[in-house]
Formats: sequence, structure tokens, C-alpha cells
Amino acid sequence: MTSTTAPQRVLTGITTTGTPHLGNYVGAIRPAVAASRDTSIESFLFLADYHALIKCSDPEQVSQSSREIAATWLALGLDTDNAVFYRQSDIPEITELNWILTCNAAKGLMNRAHAYKAVVQANEESGEDPDFAVTMGLFCYPVLMAADILMFNADKVPVGRDQVQHLEMARDIAQRFNHKFAELFRLPEAVVEDHVALLQGLDGRKMSKSYGNTIPLFLPEKQLRKHINKIKTNLLEPGEPKDPDDSTVFQIWAAFASEDEAARMRKDFAEGIAWGEAKKQLFELINAELGEARERYNELMADPAYIESVLQRGAERAREYSVPLLAKVREAVGIRRMS
Amino acid sequence: MTSTTAPQRVLTGITTTGTPHLGNYVGAIRPAVAASRDTSIESFLFLADYHALIKCSDPEQVSQSSREIAATWLALGLDTDNAVFYRQSDIPEITELNWILTCNAAKGLMNRAHAYKAVVQANEESGEDPDFAVTMGLFCYPVLMAADILMFNADKVPVGRDQVQHLEMARDIAQRFNHKFAELFRLPEAVVEDHVALLQGLDGRKMSKSYGNTIPLFLPEKQLRKHINKIKTNLLEPGEPKDPDDSTVFQIWAAFASEDEAARMRKDFAEGIAWGEAKKQLFELINAELGEARERYNELMADPAYIESVLQRGAERAREYSVPLLAKVREAVGIRRMS
Repeated sequence: MTSTTAPQRVLTGITTTGTPHLGNYVGAIRPAVAASRDTSIESFLFLADYHALIKCSDPEQVSQSSREIAATWLALGLDTDNAVFYRQSDIPEITELNWILTCNAAKGLMNRAHAYKAVVQANEESGEDPDFAVTMGLFCYPVLMAADILMFNADKVPVGRDQVQHLEMARDIAQRFNHKFAELFRLPEAVVEDHVALLQGLDGRKMSKSYGNTIPLFLPEKQLRKHINKIKTNLLEPGEPKDPDDSTVFQIWAAFASEDEAARMRKDFAEGIAWGEAKKQLFELINAELGEARERYNELMADPAYIESVLQRGAERAREYSVPLLAKVREAVGIRRMS
Repeated sequence: MTSTTAPQRVLTGITTTGTPHLGNYVGAIRPAVAASRDTSIESFLFLADYHALIKCSDPEQVSQSSREIAATWLALGLDTDNAVFYRQSDIPEITELNWILTCNAAKGLMNRAHAYKAVVQANEESGEDPDFAVTMGLFCYPVLMAADILMFNADKVPVGRDQVQHLEMARDIAQRFNHKFAELFRLPEAVVEDHVALLQGLDGRKMSKSYGNTIPLFLPEKQLRKHINKIKTNLLEPGEPKDPDDSTVFQIWAAFASEDEAARMRKDFAEGIAWGEAKKQLFELINAELGEARERYNELMADPAYIESVLQRGAERAREYSVPLLAKVREAVGIRRMS
């Protein structure tokens, strides 16, 4: 007897507002690229350009970031035969579903969204109107996220802890729809990736675009070396023992090194390796892991028509799911052709 | 020398939640059908089925109402060669534009919408949470309405007084977009139809589905007569003079009669026409105006495939406008193909 289980469908969106950095690579891209090769999983990966519009009104940045992110994922070996890799804005069914779900989402639910509440609190603290500078995009964002997920009936959505609430909202909206109209949506589960390394940035805080402390992923060699040299260290001299657990250099090292290499570096720290030497080795380690991908990245960036063709094929595959599901959703709510 | 002016583009949406009644006919349908024949105007008329979902979660009603409304307009002679007659949900560009405008609409603007505030006030008065039973559909409705209007760059939108604020919101959203990205949208103007007869219903209040006092437009003859006989009158006997200006029977008469006929009936009232006789004449007048259209209506209701073909042709014509405009909007905000 054989036992078969339907493959789990895992969905990940990447907002197209920045240039991928080492923190994105270690925390999100590397594991997702690995997952894309796992044929026991159905991976759905998309460029969330309609989410980008919520926070970014620089069209060049939205467009450039889409290109960089797509090139990055492809350069790193995303398996686009197995994973479905598409751009959100190529799937018109998503904004249509977004409206239908909007009609089925309680406003009270959105009022309680952490991201929105944080802005309201900051406004109140600075004596502004609670909704000062809040766009409807920020307020409605959890509904669009629900549409992204439910459109493909994803089982699992890997998220940071701050996104768990949005997954609960997606479940709530799905349940409401299923109850009112027809059982069309699976209830997605958040997969909180607490074990994922949160990489530190140049200044020792979490590497994040908003802190301006990132190391972009595909810097030219020379610049990569320069950035690594800028990582903040303490004033201990060569020969003085150093604490690896208090060091950004070691923390990044550990994210790229094998266990053996990590253990060896830990020993070198105890034995007083010079910061310059540790950084030199860190550069070499990262450069070795990313060097080939960087070449492919540069080739891809020079060939946008190829990236576009990959995305178009991805959109076709994605629409094999979204078109029939939206047809059922429309039928369920009464949006029907006459015949 | 000739002077040419671009034709004014006028847009009207009809929410598909009810069966058209005499009040709709007099207040909205009859003037719009007349306007559809005016070649100096570009008329855009649509079945607003995505608006219907805001207030109606009965799929059969949404679908049946779409059919009845389309059949009604066609039966009454809507000129679909001149006017562009389409179903909102056949234009996927609208929900896409809706999301882009959502990102460019201030939440504070929506907080001030009368329709939303009225619900909040009612909730507060009954001790409920302010947003009790408020869906995101109700809250976001003015943005979808802006998308409906801006998608076709309408110059004029005939509205009731309660909708003027929504037009101001559409202008505000359009201005914001034009300023931030590109001058793509005309600023629409509300045309408040104060002169339009607001028909009274069976009980003397405004004829409205929500009061349950309507006379459906295409009732079979026998039922039309019955409904008219139910119009509330006073107890004045035949021979006693009656005040036409205090009479629903006369008010409806005047909405259908020529000026001469209205004057004649006014005289008959003064001379004490019996209520039964006045109602009989009212039935005959309405039946004469609507009889042929009712036949066409019944034929159309029996031929939904034909209605569908008309709507499909309308959607094709509408998309000749919406597809290129959305392409410009996408380009402006940075949603672009790579090449």
C-alpha cells in the first residue's frame, strides 16, 4: 500500500521597492530557492508590484526593483519549471478578487491591523490627525494580501512574526466567504520562520533598507570588499581574543559558512584574529558563494527581454489557477454571464 | 471658420440590486435613454454589478437584477450604437485601476463620506461599535466609483444630491494622481438633477425599493392595474373637488402626461373626478407609454443570450478606452514590462 498526500502549496510575495541585500538572501531568498527545487512542494513566488505602490510613488524605483529582484532570484537558481514565478500585476484576477473580498471583509478587522495602528499611534503622539498621511492603500493592504493568497489557495505562507496577523485576517475573510457563498478557499497557515537568520547590518543592527546599513547582494567585487570593510567592529588589536557572539563579522560569517568553517572561525576569534584578516576571509567566503550568481545576474540585467519572457511564462502558469478559481468566485457571488 | 467642441462624455452606473420601477424610469432611465440618442453626447452606461456586491450578498438577486435592468434599458430603446452600454465586471481594468487609486486616496477622505458617517452615527446611537457591520466594501465604495468614472475620463456624471460628495472625492483622487504621476485624468463634474421628478410611491413617500412602495416598471397589465389601484388616496367622494398637488395619483400622472393632459386632469380633479376613474385613466396612460416596451422586455428576458451579446459588444467598445488608459496609468506608476 502506498500513501499519497497532496503537495503543500507555499506562496511567497516579494515587494518590489528595493535592491536585494545579504539579509534578504540569507533570510528569504536562499531558503525559497532551495524550496523551489523540492518537488514535494508547490511553490508560488511573485513580484508584489501592486504592494510596492502602497509605499513607493517613485515609478522608476518600482520598475527597477522588479527587474533587480527577478534577476536576483533567477541568477540564484530559482527553479521556474517547478516553482510558479510571476508578477502580481500580470494576474488581473487578483485585483478583481481583491474587490470581491473587500465586500466581504469587516472594516473592524482592518481597524485592528498592527501596521495601521502603529501609524495612528505615531500620528497621535505627534499631535496629528490619527489618519494623517494614511492612504487607503495602507489601510486596505491586508485585503490585497488575502487576495494574493486565496487566489492560489495556498496552504502555507512563510512570514515574519509581524505578518502573522495578516494571515489571520486572510483566514477570517476566507471563512466569511466560504460560509456566505461557497467553500472555495482553503484556509492558509502562516509559517513563522523564527529559525531563519536575521542578518546584522554594517552598524550591528538588523540589516534593513530602512536603516541604510545593508550590503547589496550583487555588488561588484571591489565594492563588496569595501562594504565588508565598513562593518562595525570594536577596537581590539590583532592577537587579542575576540567574542564571536558579539561580532557582526562573525554573525555574517556563520550565515555563509559550513559548520566546520564556523567552528574554525570561532577558534580564530578566540585566538585573536585581526579584524582586517577576518573581514578579508569574510569577503572571500561571500564572493565565492555569490560570484557565479553575480555573473548570471549581470547577464540577466543586460537582457530584460529574457526576464520578461520568464515572467510571462510564469503568468500563464499562474493564470491556469487564477482564471478558473475566479470564475467560480464570480458565479458564487452572482457575477454571471447571461445565457 | 467652424468651431468644434469635443463631445461631452457622460457616465451613468446602475447598481444591479433591484427590479426597475416607475420611479427609476421617470427619474433616470427615460432621460438617459433620450440622451443615448443625442449624438452630441458620448454616453457611457453600465451595470454596476461590483457595486451591487457591497449591499447584496444574494447571488441570485445580483444576477437576476442585472438581467432585468439590461432588458429594461434595451426594451426602452437605449441606442447602443451611440451609447456605450456595458457591464462593469466585464472591464477588468476597472478593478485594477481601483487598486492603483486606492494607493492614492487618503483614508481621511473616506472617513468623511456621508454614507459611511451615517452608518457610524446609527451604530453609535444604538450603542454599537461605530464600525459594527460595516464592510470594507461600504468604506471603499467611493474609490471604486472614482475608478468607474476616471477609467473613461467622463466629463459629467448625473447624480442625486447625496452623490455629489463622491464626485468631489473622485476629483480629489484624480488631482492627486495627476499631480504625483502624470496628467491622465479629466476632473469629472457632478450634474445634479434637481429638476428630475422624484416619483411618489404607493404610500405617498418617495418611491423606493427600501420602502417597499414601488410599482415595478414592467408588471403584466393586470398587475399594473392592481398596483395602481393600491395607490393611497384620501376619502373624498366622487364629485368632491380634490387637490392634485396633494395626490400621488396626480403626481404620477403628471410624470407621464403631456402638459395638455396634465392641465386637463388638474381640471378634472377640481371638478371632483372619482379616485377610481382617475386611477383607471392613470393605468391607461402608463400602459400606453409602456405597453410596447413591455412586450420587447418580455422577449428580451426570454432571450438572455441576445442581451449577453449586446453587453459583450459594449464591453469591447468600452475596453477600447479602458485598455489604453490603464496602460498609461501603469506606465506612470511604474508597473511596466521589461524590455
